[in-house]
Amino acid sequence: MKRDFPLDEVYGLLETGPVVLITTAWNGTQDVMTQSWHMMIEFEPPVIACVVSNANYSFGLLDKSGECAINIPTFELADKVVACGNSSGRDIDKFEAFSLKREKASLISAPLIDECYANLECRVIDRVQTYGIFILEVLKAWVNQDLKAPRTMHHRGHGEFMIAGETIRLPSKMK
Amino acid sequence: MKRDFPLDEVYGLLETGPVVLITTAWNGTQDVMTQSWHMMIEFEPPVIACVVSNANYSFGLLDKSGECAINIPTFELADKVVACGNSSGRDIDKFEAFSLKREKASLISAPLIDECYANLECRVIDRVQTYGIFILEVLKAWVNQDLKAPRTMHHRGHGEFMIAGETIRLPSKMK
Repeated sequence: MKRDFPLDEVYGLLETGPVVLITTAWNGTQDVMTQSWHMMIEFEPPVIACVVSNANYSFGLLDKSGECAINIPTFELADKVVACGNSSGRDIDKFEAFSLKREKASLISAPLIDECYANLECRVIDRVQTYGIFILEVLKAWVNQDLKAPRTMHHRGHGEFMIAGETIRLPSKMK
Repeated sequence: MKRDFPLDEVYGLLETGPVVLITTAWNGTQDVMTQSWHMMIEFEPPVIACVVSNANYSFGLLDKSGECAINIPTFELADKVVACGNSSGRDIDKFEAFSLKREKASLISAPLIDECYANLECRVIDRVQTYGIFILEVLKAWVNQDLKAPRTMHHRGHGEFMIAGETIRLPSKMK
């Protein structure tokens, strides 16, 4: 059961470096791409930097719409995550091909992926063209908060993925 | 035993989103800071974007020297990682205070942390001032390659850390 999630806690979802699925929509076309090159750059409102190359089909949709959703999968979705990374929206509708269920977002036109435990509705607020970086503000976050320790996927290269393990708690003063 | 590591494989160390220790040196002063806001932006030469706020003592050393090392700890170092995050180089010499052993780097003046399983010697090649982003090129990488599945730490916020779990291999065409 996904619920509205406090924006000032969004950094905790992405700091761990999960593989994400970025969804976009423009002019009747939708796409989803697999992505690992992202980082938090501001706590609140949450702002994220992420690299999307113009070689990706999603680039055009993101560029034109100025919106996307960052969907965070757990390892149960591993096969679909890799399938999305191995194919291009130029050739197929990945939502259909890999049976990903689309949900309507509340503030953006890009769809959310129902099977992902967290969905972040984002707007492009800036670009760093030299490095293909999009600066995204998270407008709305939906999270299945029953999942206390989501078993997210983390790419080590060449199809090797680390799966999130145990959780420890330390007396940190960091946010 | 750490060995010279191929630069085109460095992305696999950082894509998973580990907490890192950034070391800097300038004019006889050295510092180390705990950091989670970083991402790969180029495969080879490996280029990394990372956020260092001017509120951090390390900022001045990084700004003036134009160099740093990214040291990747495993969870055995958890107490020291958190201690580095909870204190400032303005007040103490963290290497002394937390018994971190310094190694000499080969190409930069900042020290490497011996206890970390991987050390990346980096040079600042650009800045994105608006967001406090430093663009770092990795000049040299040292990795303990005997450690096939390093149990890195991944911050979930408020002192909660996910520890790297099991590894799975999937037929990915991604690098």
